[in-house]
Amino acid sequence: MNAFELLGADVKWDGKLVRVGIEHFRYPDQTEVSREKVWHPGAVGILAIDDEYVWLTRQPREAVGESASLEIPAGKLDVEGESPLQAAMRELGEEIGKRAGNWEQLKAFYTSPGFSDERVWLYLASNLSDDGDAEPDEGERIEVVPWPRDRLDDAIAECEDAKSLIALLWLKSAPALTDR
Amino acid sequence: MNAFELLGADVKWDGKLVRVGIEHFRYPDQTEVSREKVWHPGAVGILAIDDEYVWLTRQPREAVGESASLEIPAGKLDVEGESPLQAAMRELGEEIGKRAGNWEQLKAFYTSPGFSDERVWLYLASNLSDDGDAEPDEGERIEVVPWPRDRLDDAIAECEDAKSLIALLWLKSAPALTDR
Repeated sequence: MNAFELLGADVKWDGKLVRVGIEHFRYPDQTEVSREKVWHPGAVGILAIDDEYVWLTRQPREAVGESASLEIPAGKLDVEGESPLQAAMRELGEEIGKRAGNWEQLKAFYTSPGFSDERVWLYLASNLSDDGDAEPDEGERIEVVPWPRDRLDDAIAECEDAKSLIALLWLKSAPALTDR
Repeated sequence: MNAFELLGADVKWDGKLVRVGIEHFRYPDQTEVSREKVWHPGAVGILAIDDEYVWLTRQPREAVGESASLEIPAGKLDVEGESPLQAAMRELGEEIGKRAGNWEQLKAFYTSPGFSDERVWLYLASNLSDDGDAEPDEGERIEVVPWPRDRLDDAIAECEDAKSLIALLWLKSAPALTDR
């Protein structure tokens, strides 16, 4: 039995996006462990496809020194009261100017469960159309990249973002997605 | 052009594993942005396979309240002077008691490049044999899980860890890996 009990947490810094600190736990055998933790509000990612393209973006990722990271459309869960699906619908419009007739949750996962509680909800969006009402985020430096699906392996080779790799490998590994 | 210049960083907390703070950047159009950042030493993950099994683990992940997270063997780059490949070889012994005759780097990626520089090096390990010299980590609550490869979809359904999902989907999507 590995069920553990949370004894408490010491918050060391509370930012606008993340909080960081140390959590303390006790196991049934009375062992106590302390772990550094980063609290994060969570995020959504969207595998947006039509027959010809998977819709990707290139954007700067300052934290890793990358000026044009190839990624799926995505965004943080930073709007009060918004569900993951609602956030995904909003981000698809803001980032690539599309809406989708079909939405399906493919997976939810933790980006790095050893130290962070960031959870990503990954959706498949298909039956795409232009979203005339979409308002691009001010100040975001996002390039829309319609990537030909017959060159999917090249996208997997270029991509260095975990959530986007999961989406691209999901597409590669699931022939059924090819037909929608 | 999205090339940006790092102006400086304010470190807010420096833990044993992570450091956290705010970095400041300037773009060529003179726009300045500040981003919260978590520095992390990086990690390795291992897709360890033989003809019958993909070798997985179950372990507690206190940060996400999970007592038995299904994951590939993995570990942090926390040994001074050790390369990612050396770390992967060490972790394969410590976590599942195996050594591998073949090592191949499949990919390197960032777990969450919006706020963290954690980079994961993912290796394929095959031609496995028991490692009699391997010393299991003291105090780690790791269960070894030989997962039948003909039930790979069940592992993908259960797994909620990004690096492990990338490995499992890689295996599913690459028939060539089936033959080693």
